[in-house]
Amino acid sequence: MSEGGFTPGFELATGAHIALSECTLAVVGVGLMGGSFAGALRGTCGRVIGVDRDPKTLELARDRGLIDEGWVDLAQGVRDADVVVLATPVRVILQLLDVIGSLLLPGTLLMDLGSTKAHILQKMVDLPSHVDVLGAHPMCGKEISGITAAEPDLYRGRTFILSPLPRTLQSGIATAKALTHAVGAKPLIIEGGRQDFLVGTISHLPYLLACSLVKTADTMTSPDPLVWDIVAGGYRDTSRVAGSDVTMMLDILMTNRDNVTEAAATFIEHLQRLVRLIESGDEEALRASLTTIRSLRKEMYP
Amino acid sequence: MSEGGFTPGFELATGAHIALSECTLAVVGVGLMGGSFAGALRGTCGRVIGVDRDPKTLELARDRGLIDEGWVDLAQGVRDADVVVLATPVRVILQLLDVIGSLLLPGTLLMDLGSTKAHILQKMVDLPSHVDVLGAHPMCGKEISGITAAEPDLYRGRTFILSPLPRTLQSGIATAKALTHAVGAKPLIIEGGRQDFLVGTISHLPYLLACSLVKTADTMTSPDPLVWDIVAGGYRDTSRVAGSDVTMMLDILMTNRDNVTEAAATFIEHLQRLVRLIESGDEEALRASLTTIRSLRKEMYP
Repeated sequence: MSEGGFTPGFELATGAHIALSECTLAVVGVGLMGGSFAGALRGTCGRVIGVDRDPKTLELARDRGLIDEGWVDLAQGVRDADVVVLATPVRVILQLLDVIGSLLLPGTLLMDLGSTKAHILQKMVDLPSHVDVLGAHPMCGKEISGITAAEPDLYRGRTFILSPLPRTLQSGIATAKALTHAVGAKPLIIEGGRQDFLVGTISHLPYLLACSLVKTADTMTSPDPLVWDIVAGGYRDTSRVAGSDVTMMLDILMTNRDNVTEAAATFIEHLQRLVRLIESGDEEALRASLTTIRSLRKEMYP
Repeated sequence: MSEGGFTPGFELATGAHIALSECTLAVVGVGLMGGSFAGALRGTCGRVIGVDRDPKTLELARDRGLIDEGWVDLAQGVRDADVVVLATPVRVILQLLDVIGSLLLPGTLLMDLGSTKAHILQKMVDLPSHVDVLGAHPMCGKEISGITAAEPDLYRGRTFILSPLPRTLQSGIATAKALTHAVGAKPLIIEGGRQDFLVGTISHLPYLLACSLVKTADTMTSPDPLVWDIVAGGYRDTSRVAGSDVTMMLDILMTNRDNVTEAAATFIEHLQRLVRLIESGDEEALRASLTTIRSLRKEMYP
């Protein structure tokens, strides 16, 4: 399958538009994702600039050795950059894409790290032609957010989705791959719509399930003080991602609405089917379902 | 609150009906839970007997130093026991309770490790009066089952629910507490119906959610070969307990049907409410819900 003119799958990097050692990198939004990305590339890239509206965040990032310099002003922060990486929540990325084009040097590669790609790529299409553009989505994160949670090892060993547009240059892809390898991650080319569909089920749905479970436990069992003495690993693990940053998740849910609600509807159907089998006492069918599901889980994580 | 004449909560053990060093312990069902329990008490109890219908399991348990001796025959295995612990799936425990009473010495304490208590305690009420009875449910487990997964440290640091009946002797409770402490766990007295209600929401519901998520991923995204390259921690954690032993879970679901289906119905209501907020784009209400839920999760796991 060809996607945006590029073959999907893992690839090695060749032919970058600039050598990393000579590259001025500007990361806009110096939180968990951006701060970690900057920190992982500091020393590898010629110069690593952090751009954030909060001067305290920039000071912390400098103190922790994650950036070489910091700017509160977007225009000043990105004006010398060979590569700009937008690492804010998705809808702040969308706002930045409205204004950033004219601030960039000819030949600059503009990337983002947003969790949903459709809306972002739609805006990237219309950026001035002197700028190269590419969507990205690293498959990692934490429940704690912000610069204090950032660590240069965050991306190590993780899959780093790259979603090029038909207009994206081969040299831009190569630079993105080189950066991805440099942070220790594995670049994976996937078209934006396809990635949004997949993460709608395997990433955004689990968040909604975790939230609904926490809410259920709160209404059903929290009135009993003994419940926290008996809670075991199943609840802890299934509810973990309910601790994710709300602004980030709200942006994700609102920009991947169709995929997320379709996944939730399918989930509810499957859950209701299991509940009906329990209620009706149809053990043979229930055993068959649970056995199939157990095998599927074991195939997924051998 | 008084439950079965006993105060719920964590307690220390005094006044056991027999000193552990003189106690002959028979564990019926030498799998993950039973094998681990036996292994944790071998050397502490005077004699640890394993009873299992599979002679190979008994051989493995002996080889691994988890039991002193093994019997395939129930009557022979339990005839000298001061304490008998039933560690099979719940509905095998129910079958054993039909036949075991007449096989036990006067004064024997009969316990079980089943995950649901209502049906088991209902049967225990009717056991001959020369036997003392007590329900138990240790809050631990693994996705892998069987003797090969057993380890004496399984119970260390975990909560070990004890559900006495009105007929249970204080000395029986004290012995159960002593055994619980000896395996490194914390005994917690809770009445059976109350424990079934709580675990219905915080343990059995997460299992159904994990199963339904695996099934959803299978129907929605598994046809895309790239999905397993991008799957992240949220999916892995939320689906983990779908790998649990099916026979054990089937018994749990069928013997805790009302609590489980009530928890699932409440869960579906909460999930549907979140989905409606996403569909309608009511961001203010969605943000408020997700923020409350995030705080609840953080209170649960500070």
